[in-house]
Amino acid sequence: MKLRYSVAALTAIVLSSGVVAQVKPEQQIKWRQSVMQVQGWSMARIKANVEGNYNRDQVVQAANILQATANGGLGSLFPPGTEMGSGWHETKTKAAMFTDSDKVKEVAMAFNKEANELARVAATGDSATVKAQFGKVGQACKGCHDKFRVEEKK
Amino acid sequence: MKLRYSVAALTAIVLSSGVVAQVKPEQQIKWRQSVMQVQGWSMARIKANVEGNYNRDQVVQAANILQATANGGLGSLFPPGTEMGSGWHETKTKAAMFTDSDKVKEVAMAFNKEANELARVAATGDSATVKAQFGKVGQACKGCHDKFRVEEKK
Repeated sequence: MKLRYSVAALTAIVLSSGVVAQVKPEQQIKWRQSVMQVQGWSMARIKANVEGNYNRDQVVQAANILQATANGGLGSLFPPGTEMGSGWHETKTKAAMFTDSDKVKEVAMAFNKEANELARVAATGDSATVKAQFGKVGQACKGCHDKFRVEEKK
Repeated sequence: MKLRYSVAALTAIVLSSGVVAQVKPEQQIKWRQSVMQVQGWSMARIKANVEGNYNRDQVVQAANILQATANGGLGSLFPPGTEMGSGWHETKTKAAMFTDSDKVKEVAMAFNKEANELARVAATGDSATVKAQFGKVGQACKGCHDKFRVEEKK
């Protein structure tokens, strides 16, 4: 897998290109909710490693999943017609996700950048560097969630 | 991201290493069901491309997600205590997944091999080669599902 991605690939995150034709909104929402879960799993694994026994292979695995999904054209999972509705559960995506393209691009590129860097430092095996970069990825996650995800019910 | 993975990484797919501590079975099952969905999304995207207008960037994105997840230590999402239960829905994993380690290793390594090769050929941009390799990945998916997933209710 290439470490560096083209501008076209970055743009594809933002624009709703690559929509799989004839897929029901429910499935699109289910897919995007699943991507968030897989990213959550990967973050949880890295957290467990940097806070406990550090296993380089596990961290590389998780960081590579974050990188691949961050660069994976997630924008295509937010096509028109999926502003409301349910996948695994009712969508938590705010309306602004479908209208504020400048901000979407900003948060997507921030996540992209930090996830690419995490995959790079994970390969070096330096746990302190990984821990610091893990924090930056977490901030990039939060940057998007704060803007585009409805607040979690406690 | 490295294209080639170590024997240790391959083994990690099979063995239940890398279990995130103190995670409820429900969450582990939710994570593994989500990985399957993300892989399904990636396969659907590639299918749409090889059967329709071929967009190299989309295919690379999807193939990289398949590769990263195939090499991502999925075995850790099947820890003891998750043989039954629900995540997004009741688990469809058969009991054999937790007992027949030789077969698990066989299907995991087959998927790993074919997904790595798909990512490699996706980068070349030759749609005919990608289409052929996409078929092999599909067979690898089926090889695992036939053995370890309960039959889908129609």
